[in-house]
Amino acid sequence: MKTTKVSELIDQVRREGRVSLTEAESKSLLSLYGIPVVEEAMVLNEGDAIVQSRRMGFPVVLKGMGSRLTHKTERGLVKVNLKCDDEVQQAFRHIKEAAGEDWEACLIQPLIKGTREFVAGMIRDPQFGPSVMFGLGGIYTEALSDVSFRIAPIDEFQANAMLDDIRACKLLGAFRGEAEVDKKQLVQVLTGLSRLGMDYPEIKEIDINPFIVMPNGSIKAVDALIILADASEIPQGTNLAGDSDHEKEIRVALDTMMHAQSIAVLGATAPRPNFPGIFECVRRFGFSGRLYPVNPKAQDYDGIKFFPSLSSLPEKVDLVILSIPAPLVPDALRECAATGNKNIHIFSAGFKETGEEEGIRLQAEIETIAHEGGLHVVGPNCMGFYVPASRMLTWTDASAESGPVSLVSQSGGNAQDFTHYISSTYGIHFSKCISFGNALTLDSTDFVDYLAHDEETKIITMYLEGVKDGPRLLRQIREISPEKPVILYKSGLTESGARAVSSHTGSMSGGEMIWKSFFKQTGAIPVDSIEEMADVTLAVHHIGATQGRKTTVIGIGGGNGVAVADSCARVGLELPAFSPELTTTLRKSIGIDGSMIRNPIDSVIAFASLPVMGETLELLARSGEIDNFIISMSLDWLTLKKEKSGTYAETIASYLADEGRKHTHGKPLIAVLRQYQPDPAIKECIPLVEKILLAGGIPVYKSLSQAVSALSKVVAYNEFCKRAYTTPDSRDEDRVALA
Amino acid sequence: MKTTKVSELIDQVRREGRVSLTEAESKSLLSLYGIPVVEEAMVLNEGDAIVQSRRMGFPVVLKGMGSRLTHKTERGLVKVNLKCDDEVQQAFRHIKEAAGEDWEACLIQPLIKGTREFVAGMIRDPQFGPSVMFGLGGIYTEALSDVSFRIAPIDEFQANAMLDDIRACKLLGAFRGEAEVDKKQLVQVLTGLSRLGMDYPEIKEIDINPFIVMPNGSIKAVDALIILADASEIPQGTNLAGDSDHEKEIRVALDTMMHAQSIAVLGATAPRPNFPGIFECVRRFGFSGRLYPVNPKAQDYDGIKFFPSLSSLPEKVDLVILSIPAPLVPDALRECAATGNKNIHIFSAGFKETGEEEGIRLQAEIETIAHEGGLHVVGPNCMGFYVPASRMLTWTDASAESGPVSLVSQSGGNAQDFTHYISSTYGIHFSKCISFGNALTLDSTDFVDYLAHDEETKIITMYLEGVKDGPRLLRQIREISPEKPVILYKSGLTESGARAVSSHTGSMSGGEMIWKSFFKQTGAIPVDSIEEMADVTLAVHHIGATQGRKTTVIGIGGGNGVAVADSCARVGLELPAFSPELTTTLRKSIGIDGSMIRNPIDSVIAFASLPVMGETLELLARSGEIDNFIISMSLDWLTLKKEKSGTYAETIASYLADEGRKHTHGKPLIAVLRQYQPDPAIKECIPLVEKILLAGGIPVYKSLSQAVSALSKVVAYNEFCKRAYTTPDSRDEDRVALA
Repeated sequence: MKTTKVSELIDQVRREGRVSLTEAESKSLLSLYGIPVVEEAMVLNEGDAIVQSRRMGFPVVLKGMGSRLTHKTERGLVKVNLKCDDEVQQAFRHIKEAAGEDWEACLIQPLIKGTREFVAGMIRDPQFGPSVMFGLGGIYTEALSDVSFRIAPIDEFQANAMLDDIRACKLLGAFRGEAEVDKKQLVQVLTGLSRLGMDYPEIKEIDINPFIVMPNGSIKAVDALIILADASEIPQGTNLAGDSDHEKEIRVALDTMMHAQSIAVLGATAPRPNFPGIFECVRRFGFSGRLYPVNPKAQDYDGIKFFPSLSSLPEKVDLVILSIPAPLVPDALRECAATGNKNIHIFSAGFKETGEEEGIRLQAEIETIAHEGGLHVVGPNCMGFYVPASRMLTWTDASAESGPVSLVSQSGGNAQDFTHYISSTYGIHFSKCISFGNALTLDSTDFVDYLAHDEETKIITMYLEGVKDGPRLLRQIREISPEKPVILYKSGLTESGARAVSSHTGSMSGGEMIWKSFFKQTGAIPVDSIEEMADVTLAVHHIGATQGRKTTVIGIGGGNGVAVADSCARVGLELPAFSPELTTTLRKSIGIDGSMIRNPIDSVIAFASLPVMGETLELLARSGEIDNFIISMSLDWLTLKKEKSGTYAETIASYLADEGRKHTHGKPLIAVLRQYQPDPAIKECIPLVEKILLAGGIPVYKSLSQAVSALSKVVAYNEFCKRAYTTPDSRDEDRVALA
Repeated sequence: MKTTKVSELIDQVRREGRVSLTEAESKSLLSLYGIPVVEEAMVLNEGDAIVQSRRMGFPVVLKGMGSRLTHKTERGLVKVNLKCDDEVQQAFRHIKEAAGEDWEACLIQPLIKGTREFVAGMIRDPQFGPSVMFGLGGIYTEALSDVSFRIAPIDEFQANAMLDDIRACKLLGAFRGEAEVDKKQLVQVLTGLSRLGMDYPEIKEIDINPFIVMPNGSIKAVDALIILADASEIPQGTNLAGDSDHEKEIRVALDTMMHAQSIAVLGATAPRPNFPGIFECVRRFGFSGRLYPVNPKAQDYDGIKFFPSLSSLPEKVDLVILSIPAPLVPDALRECAATGNKNIHIFSAGFKETGEEEGIRLQAEIETIAHEGGLHVVGPNCMGFYVPASRMLTWTDASAESGPVSLVSQSGGNAQDFTHYISSTYGIHFSKCISFGNALTLDSTDFVDYLAHDEETKIITMYLEGVKDGPRLLRQIREISPEKPVILYKSGLTESGARAVSSHTGSMSGGEMIWKSFFKQTGAIPVDSIEEMADVTLAVHHIGATQGRKTTVIGIGGGNGVAVADSCARVGLELPAFSPELTTTLRKSIGIDGSMIRNPIDSVIAFASLPVMGETLELLARSGEIDNFIISMSLDWLTLKKEKSGTYAETIASYLADEGRKHTHGKPLIAVLRQYQPDPAIKECIPLVEKILLAGGIPVYKSLSQAVSALSKVVAYNEFCKRAYTTPDSRDEDRVALA
């Protein structure tokens, strides 16, 4: 949607050697994109100033203009609230005198009055490119940083969501006798900024501060600044359309690697005590294809024949794993290229991640080799692939079972820890795991693209520190997440990289806020640790669609009634009071002795009698007052009674896993196991109870806060999906805009 | 510091049947307390208005006044920026006309110009009484709720802290060419409001909105409202001086109960399967005094002789425990009073906590009986006492060991869970635990008073839902906490009780913000769950004084480097980069292969060689760049190597617990155990490693986030203590003010 006028204006500013547009130029450019700016006129003498003032209507504002003029307010070059010819004339003289040689003209505007001021802008995030900002304006912009961001392009729905995001959003409604802000106009501003950011990579930053809201609710941009990028900063070919041939090539390469029939391990050795080495790990996991150890110096063991080099192998292999010292990697890659072995996992560390000069140099060297040789490289500094179905693994003790979850992890340690943890804690297994480290040629987006097309992957989990092509990741995950939930552990969020900034918009951007927008825009589920990623994966895996936030907790013993309310409130779940009708019905069913017929329900009887538990669930589910169920099981109490088949806790678990869960009519049912007594016999029943519940598809957690946090994230994800499905137009529009 | 003038003014308003002071009255009262208010004059005719305007200097503001006038701005009764005689005259006419019959006079003020506006006020919190508020003013008060509270009385130090508390505190500094706000003046306002709140229980609310900051930094209250309390609302005898005889009597009674030589259990029965009953619990724990089961209907067991009634006992007992149905409690209490048995624990539930009419009635009945009989009652609806040294316990399986921690818990369930959990998890034991339920006559403050005087209690832990005498709790904990740390789990913080409010100040008060102030003012350490209370108690128990927030993490394996930085940043700990000198020194000691000489340090070598670990700690401790040490032990790695004496993890733990911790020179050393691999052998070594570390006085946690959170709270507590000790004057002043 580029316009000739804008391009001409930008060219002219460049020709004049300026890096920013004047206020007048900035506003005229913005108005071309539908942004309401205050009327204004340039005047060169007192007479014109008076004529223009009369035309606009008093009171007016007069400002001194000049390319060398800065700090206008401090220098007395801005005169406001001029009410008559005389005042305009005097102001003109003062300004001209104060500006001296730097004076070029005066700008005249009608005075815009309004108590509410906002700010809007556009910045370029180093990872995600053009991003739109909206927030509280005036003196509060700096003092409060009450702003929200969205990565461009944004549609009207997203622009509206930005407005609701700021803490001061109350000010957008009718306020103290002034009308509600014209949201349509505001949305037009934000989508206009988005389009400007997408259309003109030459524009580095736009800062509109303030927007004044007039008493009738309409808005005007009163001051604006547009800064251009240095030629060197202008993003090159953002490749928005996507290179589908290249994407396809990478998908095929990844598919070959993940279903490798042949693997060569360079640097293979006999296992040392406690350190089996990569080759032995792959072998022990039972890789079913042809496995070639390559090492000219290795000693034979276990009857294994070592090969001296890649070229001595009887075939080109589907995957080469480099497990050799970093300084030897360049030559090894050259050999890969020469022998036509293009699919490579570099396990070796000692590159850019060291932060040391030599490591950085080595990485640059192998990057060149990889690009020139057309190699597909996973790594360096990573664990590569774990694919149970292909019997591929580069570490030890992982589950041999396949499952619905896939993992893309920048860290090898986290890949091992997460897969170990979720398999052994929750019995959830994996389809494909890729640990990709320094991302020499293949980055997270390549793996996400592969997994998006992979039918065996139902849930995508990710650990990321950064991403090379942010806009691509945004598009991918927004596309995928309504069908395949994406659970993303993004670390480094609190690090605010120091950045040179030239305006308010710039100073308030920065990693954390942009990533927060990313989650809102894509529906990716944010988690903050490996343990939380496992908790949420468990909930996503077992809970289907959710209907809302209204939650009940049924528990026994412990003084945790108030704590339940606190925990729910902290994560945004509702714990509604039951209606009088429902309370009466429940009282009839549960009885009263030792039971609190409130939400949370504290009832010994519901736990003592399985039919009562079932009826309680049934009544609650059918009341329409409850969307989600949490059963808080105090094992200290529920193990007192012994049954033939084990503890009573196991009896309850079996009931919930089978008959009980039917009574919730598909609404989520989650269990929490509370256990505090030191008796080891009670602790021992925990894994038994967990196993029964998990086998019945009931997520089970060790604390209420874990349970409500995981549940609230699944509910929020479902809300995103619902919006995504019910606003197909806006999504289609986006796709068009991206095409 | 009451003044006759203020009392007279209040009396006059009451006589006139008004509930609030006029704007002019409010401001004149405030100015008596040192609060700068805008100059003003009441005028009854145009001539006077012009005379006063000239005297004050143009521009001025004119407002219509009248006891029936509300919504002045909307009705056009406020005219600002009047610049000359004519404008004043016209404004006067307009206002008089618009107000019609309700007009009584006009108020005239000089126009106060300033871009920064604040709000201040005083409210009465139902639990804590007069509380002072400060925040962002103007239209942003409602929209942003950027306010801070302190419970009165406050001194200058606390008033200053309030200013730093608001998010927009930047606006208090020099800002856009305007001077720094005169903080001395602001502090005078806040302490003045505090004194007004303390001096006049008749004043219900004060609302000053806005305070305008003039360009030179000085402030003026431009609008103010003072609301009086209904006669029924005026707090009666707040008992600030403390009734030391009564306090002493209760301390003696509690001491008798906690060191009881004789206990009678009313409602004692033979144990049933799985439910031993209170009597049997006390007996099994080995109570060493004389234990009397009282129950006319009970059957003998185990050769135990039952008594039919209290009066049939051979002596008055130190403690009577009532374990009988709620409806029988009133008669039992009457018998206690009649037999001179004054120390009572009512275990029975079924009172106010049910929320049912009958329960509420029963509680009112027993309250009367208790007060008339001068009974000291713990409960009802609680577990009473757990005192290991006296062999007193009303539940099962508690530790028989004594320790330095005492607990005051409103919930019996939480008392059991917390004591079980911390004893079995961290090997920390108790001196005295009191679960007090519905607080019929004895409340948390009585127990805190006792524990404050108890030499065996070194750390006080508390679980509270509410408190009867908030001001007393505030004074107590502020006094105690610098000597005995108080760790407080306050639940119900997110419940914002609906309250009738009549001004901005009122609408923004409410439980959560007042409790937050409570923590800041007392140094009590806030926690949000039983588990966190245990984590923090562990840290407080083992860590002495801390020096600052600069922390280092030494770890091995796992992709948690970035996560460490995130975790520290979230709780306000610093993870500083090492100086080049320290980096060089460390590199020499640790070497480079496989180690990252950064903070966090990821070093296999430091773990592989104990002398290197020791030297690393020594170098860091002596560098002055680090205040706190966290050792993150990956058991998945550290158990690979087997030693004669067990796993290598145990060897490292033993080293740290003995030699290693000496190298930190008294700076806190905390361990984190990471364990993800499913191998049960690795899991099994966790309790062994924990035991070694705990025995060596090293707190040990299962996750980094637990460790940094607990550490950050101990650091914040030490910062509070340091301030408390270094500002003795301000504390003494408070004491005088309270006396």
